[in-house]
Amino acid sequence: MEKAGSMPIGVFDSGLGGLTVAREIMRNLPNERIVYFGDTARVPYGSKSKNTIVRYSRQIVRFLKTQDIKAIVIACNTATALAIDEVSEEAGMPVIGVVEPGARMAAESTRNGKVGVIATRATIHTHAYSNAIRRINPDIRVFSQAGALLVPLVEEGWVHDRVTDEIIMRYLDDLLEHGIDTLILGCTHYPLLRSTIRKLVGDEVTLINPAYETAKELGRMLACRGLESTGTIEEGEPYPYKFFVSDDPDKFTSFANSILPVDVKMAKIVPIEEY
Amino acid sequence: MEKAGSMPIGVFDSGLGGLTVAREIMRNLPNERIVYFGDTARVPYGSKSKNTIVRYSRQIVRFLKTQDIKAIVIACNTATALAIDEVSEEAGMPVIGVVEPGARMAAESTRNGKVGVIATRATIHTHAYSNAIRRINPDIRVFSQAGALLVPLVEEGWVHDRVTDEIIMRYLDDLLEHGIDTLILGCTHYPLLRSTIRKLVGDEVTLINPAYETAKELGRMLACRGLESTGTIEEGEPYPYKFFVSDDPDKFTSFANSILPVDVKMAKIVPIEEY
Repeated sequence: MEKAGSMPIGVFDSGLGGLTVAREIMRNLPNERIVYFGDTARVPYGSKSKNTIVRYSRQIVRFLKTQDIKAIVIACNTATALAIDEVSEEAGMPVIGVVEPGARMAAESTRNGKVGVIATRATIHTHAYSNAIRRINPDIRVFSQAGALLVPLVEEGWVHDRVTDEIIMRYLDDLLEHGIDTLILGCTHYPLLRSTIRKLVGDEVTLINPAYETAKELGRMLACRGLESTGTIEEGEPYPYKFFVSDDPDKFTSFANSILPVDVKMAKIVPIEEY
Repeated sequence: MEKAGSMPIGVFDSGLGGLTVAREIMRNLPNERIVYFGDTARVPYGSKSKNTIVRYSRQIVRFLKTQDIKAIVIACNTATALAIDEVSEEAGMPVIGVVEPGARMAAESTRNGKVGVIATRATIHTHAYSNAIRRINPDIRVFSQAGALLVPLVEEGWVHDRVTDEIIMRYLDDLLEHGIDTLILGCTHYPLLRSTIRKLVGDEVTLINPAYETAKELGRMLACRGLESTGTIEEGEPYPYKFFVSDDPDKFTSFANSILPVDVKMAKIVPIEEY
């Protein structure tokens, strides 16, 4: 299994947001190699239809499979919610999405049985989080809210800003009125707003970051299947983390360097439509 | 020329915004037929690279040419700014973009020689409006501002909203400090914010809507080339306006019906990547 262990994990997202998942994998599973694909030419997925997201996700899986990977992480809530079954079918290897681990932790955390979810419109419309939570515990009530402006606000860099505070409050208002004690940050960009959200909701609400739960779940799954990396990544090993995008590597690498614990020197462009 | 005259005009955009251009063509050239394509699967273009936008635009032109059209209107500022030359080359027929007509009217309107442009990041980075205005009158000073949040705000439906007011003011602050007397709404979504922008900038600033100028320019061009429709569109003529999209026709038709003067019953999905 040494060979399998040293193979990288394929991680993909509609663009930049999935880097928060890659970051948690790097932090929690420091011996694992990663091949990341960000679909920056076709971002965002959050407003697109299931058919389109399934088609795009299949193309990405076909590309990732050329990279000799051992497992796939769908580091995008929308793609997980809309395409995890099709991705698993296409992949022929273990696949983990971000929804199930986030839902499980939310179900474990809530004390009053009221969980809130904030996510993109497409993710909310699938009811993926509500369905996953109710499968675990049908007594939990789930309240959902689409937050279409939050990704643009993060990408505009307005993370600590009065306008962002007001928009977040408006999105969270109903959820808080329902008395939720647990809030799932159901889009991979939202952990970047965590401190702002924390300030606005107070200490009484537990914030769930599915990216972190997904990294932990990935570690358990690799261990169970004997697929974990047993060697360590040597200092100076060329490219334990590889990055691919479908458009404009410069914007991607600058964002990646602002949030990852490693230095991202380059990202290669992949003609993803050809896969 | 009667045959050519009755052929439709191909109009395309990255998604919904170009409908404001289609609306001006319907209002100003009521005898012209239109085939509209909105690239809703790959929207938005405003944050993508030139290569990608050129590739997408060429695919759209190849599709539009299957529709027996007589001319093409690029109803998207970003695609005009980044791809008008490549579109013209691919088209082999008259092509009009939204930048040149908007720039010309701004140059005619300004009294103090200070023009502001607000547009997507990609459009601003090309300097398309500044270059076009300076070609007309090198003495005019052009001040530009990217407004990345405005399209998401319009699509969220927050057109008359305190948050939108504050964001617009923040974007326009610098331009107003420079003393502009003319402001180009350099993204096809922005005319939908016109009344809000008018309220915030006051009556002293002339607002330029490139969609309107483009429709007028299209009328002149068709007349010069003997390509204008000489017959009228009969009440009840099936499909004088046809709509095609690359994703989710429902969202598209509901937006189209909210802004167009005609009833949009359906939009067909086109597998645009295959063109």
